[in-house]
Amino acid sequence: MKDTVKIDEGGGGQASADLIKEIRDILNIKNKWTNCNDDAAIFNTGKEKIVFTTDSYIVDPIFFPGGDIGKIAISGTINDLSVMGAKPIGIALSIVLEDGFPKDNLKKIMHSINKVSQEAKVPIVTGDTKVTDKGKLDKIVITTSGVGLVQNIISNNGAQPGDFIISSGDLGEHTIALLAKRFNYQTKIKSDSHAFNFELAQVGKYLKACKDPTRGGLAANIIEIADKSKVKIILDEKTLPYKKETTAISNLLGLDVFSLASEGRFIAAVNPKNVNKVLTILKKFNKEAKVIGHTEIGKDVFLKTALDTLRPIKMPKGKLIPRIC
Amino acid sequence: MKDTVKIDEGGGGQASADLIKEIRDILNIKNKWTNCNDDAAIFNTGKEKIVFTTDSYIVDPIFFPGGDIGKIAISGTINDLSVMGAKPIGIALSIVLEDGFPKDNLKKIMHSINKVSQEAKVPIVTGDTKVTDKGKLDKIVITTSGVGLVQNIISNNGAQPGDFIISSGDLGEHTIALLAKRFNYQTKIKSDSHAFNFELAQVGKYLKACKDPTRGGLAANIIEIADKSKVKIILDEKTLPYKKETTAISNLLGLDVFSLASEGRFIAAVNPKNVNKVLTILKKFNKEAKVIGHTEIGKDVFLKTALDTLRPIKMPKGKLIPRIC
Repeated sequence: MKDTVKIDEGGGGQASADLIKEIRDILNIKNKWTNCNDDAAIFNTGKEKIVFTTDSYIVDPIFFPGGDIGKIAISGTINDLSVMGAKPIGIALSIVLEDGFPKDNLKKIMHSINKVSQEAKVPIVTGDTKVTDKGKLDKIVITTSGVGLVQNIISNNGAQPGDFIISSGDLGEHTIALLAKRFNYQTKIKSDSHAFNFELAQVGKYLKACKDPTRGGLAANIIEIADKSKVKIILDEKTLPYKKETTAISNLLGLDVFSLASEGRFIAAVNPKNVNKVLTILKKFNKEAKVIGHTEIGKDVFLKTALDTLRPIKMPKGKLIPRIC
Repeated sequence: MKDTVKIDEGGGGQASADLIKEIRDILNIKNKWTNCNDDAAIFNTGKEKIVFTTDSYIVDPIFFPGGDIGKIAISGTINDLSVMGAKPIGIALSIVLEDGFPKDNLKKIMHSINKVSQEAKVPIVTGDTKVTDKGKLDKIVITTSGVGLVQNIISNNGAQPGDFIISSGDLGEHTIALLAKRFNYQTKIKSDSHAFNFELAQVGKYLKACKDPTRGGLAANIIEIADKSKVKIILDEKTLPYKKETTAISNLLGLDVFSLASEGRFIAAVNPKNVNKVLTILKKFNKEAKVIGHTEIGKDVFLKTALDTLRPIKMPKGKLIPRIC
């Protein structure tokens, strides 16, 4: 390692991946005890398979259309367990507050956390609270960790040539809602932030690989599925899972839609024979659920354009949008 | 709730307890799924009893004699599991870094975490890394969460009249080492920060109640054992577990020794018939392990002075010493 940490290294793209690799290498994060990927670790005790995950949230602004830092923290942790095929059984909540943080805001965030916890039926079971000096923190940092139990693990390396790629709904709305609030831009787009444990549990047995496209967006997460599963993935421009307004605002801000984050969606690989069953179930939760591409023998991810050409989708590099989660 | 969060609410005394109660009440942190105390939550899945804990660390300074923020983070989580009688099986590590944080320091902290992890034989199994803008964070926030498995839970409510109170070593050295570094004061005192899972595992079956006296020090933690166990506890001034230099520096700084934090010690209630066995084992790890008091019928905690009078030990109030863990 050299020099200093840069804000670019927190955006979820290649720079983040490089920093995380440096840290993981020192900590020797693969070992015989556990199976480890970016979303969660799995322990097989012989009696239970326990899934364990953690995430820190430094969202700016902390309140935004469709949610707040508390809602995305707890939803995010429930979702990280769910994409592994686990049933979440409890969340640990650690809060660092700046001296001077308004108690009304704290109360609002705690009520928001409680609402998600109640609706998703995943209790907050333990926690920690620290307070730091004024000017030493931007308001609040929330870290949520979760434990779940799993029978059949959904990996992110199980896609095979010939599968369909599905999305549980339109993508990128979390980033757009947050940026619109940051820049005071009027839009109807709201954050997609929510816990998707129930919808995923109903289709989990049909999913051969699954990820939630948070930091790094569809690009980083679909590339991860392609790389780990050793398949080529072709996304279809005609069925891209982005609303017109999402794409328009994204273009206006000079952003790549494929790198926009969602906080309540998942993408997955599904065998063609199961795809109708899966979509019928998912559409009960969100009518935007659909097939967005397919897999072939090969590697890398491509967008099949309206002109029938193949444009490579690349891992987002450098400064994506920091502090969206 | 009213007004704003105050730095006093992060010190580990009464003000902290009040803030945490406000948060826990909103989150409804007791429920049929889990047994919950301040150190960790327990899930009984029917096949395994899983213990789960989390803590955020905002230590200032981040490097100090005897350790650094990484060492106390991972030791603290291992210890929180250990005091429940659990065998820690994995740690999740979440890091928030300020843009501009020196990579050499990050590397030093990661190597320190790895050293504790290797020595305590508890792997880091998953993690998260976020980067926030310059000036929005004081360097680094580390949140460690841990999962352990337990057969026989050590509660903090099992002390009975007639038990001895023991300490696994001298107390308060973490706070003193940290403050000495903060004020550039020369002392030989080093932080007691370390993972005590092996020493505790060897004596666990004899401990009727156990706590690690971190934030809030001996005072807050022994009062918790007295309250939850519904016993009176008498500490003996002649056997107080503080080094002369600890007491001297504490007095110099106008601090109450009983509120000084340790990051690698535990206190426990032990039946008199087992106390020699326990101390023989503990002295192999730390020759300062000793009996520091006893329990009686009644309530509250008292110090038996050299003049044979009883002085009440009270819950530390308001601004203890912030940012020691």
